[in-house]
Amino acid sequence: MGVLRGLRVVESSAFVAVPSAGMTLAQMGADVIRIDLPGGGMDAARWPVTPDGRSLFWAGMNKGKRSVAIDVADPRGRELAAELICAPGPDAGCFITNLPARGEMSFASLRERREDVIMVSLKGTRDGGPAVDYSVNPALGFPMATGPEGSADPVAHVLPAWDLIAGQMVALGLLAAERDRGRGRGGQLVELALKDVAAAVLGHCGIIGEVVVNGVDRPKYGNALYGGYGQDFLCADGRRVMVIGLTGRQWKSLVKVTGVGVPMAALGSRLGLDLNEEGARFRARDEITALLRPWFAARTVEDFAGSFDAAGVTWSVFRSFAEAVREDPDLSPENPMFHAVDQPGIGRFPVPASPISFGAMAPDRPRPAPELGQHTEEVLADVLGLASGQIGALMDSGVIAGPVPA
Amino acid sequence: MGVLRGLRVVESSAFVAVPSAGMTLAQMGADVIRIDLPGGGMDAARWPVTPDGRSLFWAGMNKGKRSVAIDVADPRGRELAAELICAPGPDAGCFITNLPARGEMSFASLRERREDVIMVSLKGTRDGGPAVDYSVNPALGFPMATGPEGSADPVAHVLPAWDLIAGQMVALGLLAAERDRGRGRGGQLVELALKDVAAAVLGHCGIIGEVVVNGVDRPKYGNALYGGYGQDFLCADGRRVMVIGLTGRQWKSLVKVTGVGVPMAALGSRLGLDLNEEGARFRARDEITALLRPWFAARTVEDFAGSFDAAGVTWSVFRSFAEAVREDPDLSPENPMFHAVDQPGIGRFPVPASPISFGAMAPDRPRPAPELGQHTEEVLADVLGLASGQIGALMDSGVIAGPVPA
Repeated sequence: MGVLRGLRVVESSAFVAVPSAGMTLAQMGADVIRIDLPGGGMDAARWPVTPDGRSLFWAGMNKGKRSVAIDVADPRGRELAAELICAPGPDAGCFITNLPARGEMSFASLRERREDVIMVSLKGTRDGGPAVDYSVNPALGFPMATGPEGSADPVAHVLPAWDLIAGQMVALGLLAAERDRGRGRGGQLVELALKDVAAAVLGHCGIIGEVVVNGVDRPKYGNALYGGYGQDFLCADGRRVMVIGLTGRQWKSLVKVTGVGVPMAALGSRLGLDLNEEGARFRARDEITALLRPWFAARTVEDFAGSFDAAGVTWSVFRSFAEAVREDPDLSPENPMFHAVDQPGIGRFPVPASPISFGAMAPDRPRPAPELGQHTEEVLADVLGLASGQIGALMDSGVIAGPVPA
Repeated sequence: MGVLRGLRVVESSAFVAVPSAGMTLAQMGADVIRIDLPGGGMDAARWPVTPDGRSLFWAGMNKGKRSVAIDVADPRGRELAAELICAPGPDAGCFITNLPARGEMSFASLRERREDVIMVSLKGTRDGGPAVDYSVNPALGFPMATGPEGSADPVAHVLPAWDLIAGQMVALGLLAAERDRGRGRGGQLVELALKDVAAAVLGHCGIIGEVVVNGVDRPKYGNALYGGYGQDFLCADGRRVMVIGLTGRQWKSLVKVTGVGVPMAALGSRLGLDLNEEGARFRARDEITALLRPWFAARTVEDFAGSFDAAGVTWSVFRSFAEAVREDPDLSPENPMFHAVDQPGIGRFPVPASPISFGAMAPDRPRPAPELGQHTEEVLADVLGLASGQIGALMDSGVIAGPVPA
């Protein structure tokens, strides 16, 4: 069911951004039909993969969708795709894509077929140039501001953050346009570019202002939290922790629980800084860290975890991915968001439902990703009303495909 | 105007996630009223700041909103805030927050006042524990998988990626719930937790499956693109570039334009790998990089930029933030998303409009952030119909505040 029950969205996509948009909408209850080439799209084998080459990534990004395999390189395939996109119904006529939509699948063509169609198109750059998360990120400065202080080496991010942000924006743009359509104002083409999404964030976070107004080119500050206090520490057991003192409350609880109130006050006096101000804490971060370092070096995480939590300190152990899965209750069945799901061809493992919980709805339960082409017949029959003979003929001609037999 | 014209959203927030949600909705045309304490909320002085302490961050995250200063620590202030949230109108009754909503501002109280109210509440952890982007990130594994291969040191991210993803989800959750309400199904409480947003992404990207199904704990791979080919290179002019060969097309254009087709084929033969497969390229990444390194080392960026672009290579120079602002046309007025905006108290600098463009709407033009309390009188008069005498009395009692005189 879900809050978006009834909404139908057709997706033609690859990789992270638009697949994650469709998956988000599917987990909120929309009927999301992903169109792929027979044999799979560009992301069909995206890593991580299982030892026999099944993509764990694809399974993650396509949960709860229906999969239709159509050869959109063939005009007959594009015609079918356009019919699916433009199928009747007040809650249909929605299309999201990050692939070039040519011919029958272009917005102009779709609009001829269904006047109130909504298409959300994500490009790399706004002029159609190639750009992916891992090329956008270096261009805009983050890798040169990430990593150890003083280093000249860029550090690329591992999380495809821009893709994930852009993906939520694709879903948001769709709902906004669909809201407008529901008010009788028609459909429209909604466009965004991955690089513009990132460029806008540079503005939103004040970084463009910092360059232009302040004339400052922010360097690497290691793991220090910029503009406040936040730092990593090595503990006696060899583990590392991050502690945060951004807000006044966070700062006070950290100082209190580590018992450094007196030397911290002396430090502030010596430096002529009011360490209750976040900016002062950032300026004095090295001295603060020097003061706290012996405290952490003398203790194991177990020694202080309980008192930190009781005092409401904002902190965390650094974990590897496997440590996180093993240790963190938020990644375990203790978290009602996770359910063991049987993913055909892969196996049973913990899969997240939507992190957004709607109070008036039953909680979402995650569904597996489809097999490629699993719903080709079903969708063409249900949505387009094709007879089995027509579907068979399309299969024979290679315009569509069902699931690959195991 | 904008696609969300008419929608009114009240925001009580601080820092990144919910402010960015409100700002996104405001840039799409919603009337977003941000409530802050007189004197400002926890993020009023968030860095970067100008030399005289004005927050460039706050200005970036609150563009296009109206600002109302209400002392919500005072029950009379909470009463006023609740009245604002629950003011009549089919497109009102929407509240987004990442602060504890107590008493009159709790969902239960709001619902008594307006049965179809929608409240989106973002917490740190789902049980209400403290968590911020910079503590969530270490807990879930990314810093231990980021940075130079072989290093044991965690590398924290600089971009508050989780906050930004969660912010878009807050906006999305609001529109989804408002869509449902528009279908006569009432309002609801929508909840999400920053840590769950991140934990879900760990699942979506296949990382939990990689741990549980494959038994693999992904190590640091430096700047290599995991599972495909992507690497940074030092050029003859001292600049660094990132080149991407994730898709077949990207890979072929990179091999062709660098003229390494013959040795690359020989490399594949020698290793017994088909380098047309993305996973094979990842396995052979060190050998591929060794083959390409001399090519880049012998050339300046200027030497190859034109041919890379002409060949459709997916690549980028690494830039600092200031270099990006100076050099990248996508951060300049060449990009219609950017406009010079006069931000009171700060000055004139390039500010991004919404990166989402709606074809049926005039392009968004960015508006400055309000001064704190700039719209207190206007909003209390227009939305609640308070008379100037009532507003004056509330000002005198300190329950509300107007802008601080310059």
